[in-house]
Amino acid sequence: MTIIMDGKKLAEKVTGNIKSEIKKYNIRPKLAVIMAGDNPSSKIYVQNKQKKALELGIDSVVLTFPQDVYEDNLLENIYILNEDVNINAILVQLPLPEHINTKRILEAIEPIKDVDGFTSYNFGLLALGYNPYCIPCTPKGILRLFDEYNIELEGKNVLVAGRSNIVGKPMMMLLQNRNATVTLAHSKTKNLKDISINSDIIISAVGKENLITEDMVKQNSIIIDVGINRDINGLKGDVDFKNVINKASYITPVPGGVGPMTIAMLMENTFELYKIQKNYQLL
Amino acid sequence: MTIIMDGKKLAEKVTGNIKSEIKKYNIRPKLAVIMAGDNPSSKIYVQNKQKKALELGIDSVVLTFPQDVYEDNLLENIYILNEDVNINAILVQLPLPEHINTKRILEAIEPIKDVDGFTSYNFGLLALGYNPYCIPCTPKGILRLFDEYNIELEGKNVLVAGRSNIVGKPMMMLLQNRNATVTLAHSKTKNLKDISINSDIIISAVGKENLITEDMVKQNSIIIDVGINRDINGLKGDVDFKNVINKASYITPVPGGVGPMTIAMLMENTFELYKIQKNYQLL
Repeated sequence: MTIIMDGKKLAEKVTGNIKSEIKKYNIRPKLAVIMAGDNPSSKIYVQNKQKKALELGIDSVVLTFPQDVYEDNLLENIYILNEDVNINAILVQLPLPEHINTKRILEAIEPIKDVDGFTSYNFGLLALGYNPYCIPCTPKGILRLFDEYNIELEGKNVLVAGRSNIVGKPMMMLLQNRNATVTLAHSKTKNLKDISINSDIIISAVGKENLITEDMVKQNSIIIDVGINRDINGLKGDVDFKNVINKASYITPVPGGVGPMTIAMLMENTFELYKIQKNYQLL
Repeated sequence: MTIIMDGKKLAEKVTGNIKSEIKKYNIRPKLAVIMAGDNPSSKIYVQNKQKKALELGIDSVVLTFPQDVYEDNLLENIYILNEDVNINAILVQLPLPEHINTKRILEAIEPIKDVDGFTSYNFGLLALGYNPYCIPCTPKGILRLFDEYNIELEGKNVLVAGRSNIVGKPMMMLLQNRNATVTLAHSKTKNLKDISINSDIIISAVGKENLITEDMVKQNSIIIDVGINRDINGLKGDVDFKNVINKASYITPVPGGVGPMTIAMLMENTFELYKIQKNYQLL
């Protein structure tokens, strides 16, 4: 029997707890989002984040900038948000327009407000095996799914496909810190199937429909699909779900798997930053 | 024909160039080393580093502290070195005594003087795929060996055994940035041989004699031995050299392989930090 991992349900549990706590303590954490340009997916993502925040009692503000915004203008706004004691968390919606130096923008965020954990300071702490202020939302959400379903990671062979700074790399580090043996694959990897077929767990974050097919996975493996591919039939992941499900012991659907967990972890990170900052102010 | 990779020779070439440049420009880069406790291996390493620095025209100073030094005393000394414009590079010899919080000590180093690249800032930049001020010496030296012998890394399956912050993890990141497909193994890894036998390149940094044996490697693989194991017969690596050599296309010896490259890279990093700092002062 294959178990379909219900990210929607777990996300509701997590955010439900956050909502109760926020209400109980009568507080108002606040998230600021920087969005530049007119990427239609980004607009949807940001709307969903803002909607969820409102639902939980988290204030949010979205600062939007035109496609041809000056880099220095973005930086100035980040500096202002860094200084603003009412802002607990700063998120820069990616991708930024091509002429913008993404590294420079992300690095400008104060680590203690870096809700995505993408600054070198937080990312470095994670890589070194220490606790950063925030762990990137998508891999953190995947780890939470493993824990919810009591999936042991120690000693497991895990294939992570896709090496983005947002998902693949931090996922690798988190699994590594949990004593899994991780292989990170990418566009230059040869013979992906030779690796996937020997993996206990496959996490695919590439964005390529049907990248992971039934013949590539071993019996009883655990399949996490982070792919987001939109076509005329709607949203699809990287995994050929209807066939791979026959071999998997656990599998995440798209939609309703990793996606809701990402937003839930963003809310959790915002709430955690609020608590850290308030503690600091009380000291 | 197996090629034995001559780290000693390459290290001499690298340090010879540094020596010439230092002489030509009549400059004095300066390295400070913090050593606490009485680990006999550490003393030898530090002596070797200081000897090599002197040979190249790099000033060095070793600050030694007793085994039971206070953490705050180490921190104060790092703060002084951070401020001292005559010090270009700060190295904390590891391991520190057990009662010392190593993370706290390493994080105190100014990133622009962090000659080992162990601060979260520099380590994070490396993990994110950007350029840190310094790349950790041992993995940097191994990369230099690959380049010297024109070994292509893109698309290669590489096993890195040992997940220390000093060798294994930064090695993984560097290989990753060069488009290799990397698996990071460690003490909790099951069936190391299943991974090693499918690897084009094996880098062993565990510190366990005969960890890598002939039956574990495939024909024509490339074997890098970072192990340092001292027994009554002298220094040995992790690799059963005399048998594995039959299958390897390239292999590093112990001693004379990776070891000399580590010291050479420390000298190079010190020199590079000197140049960066002088450029900044000229701006």
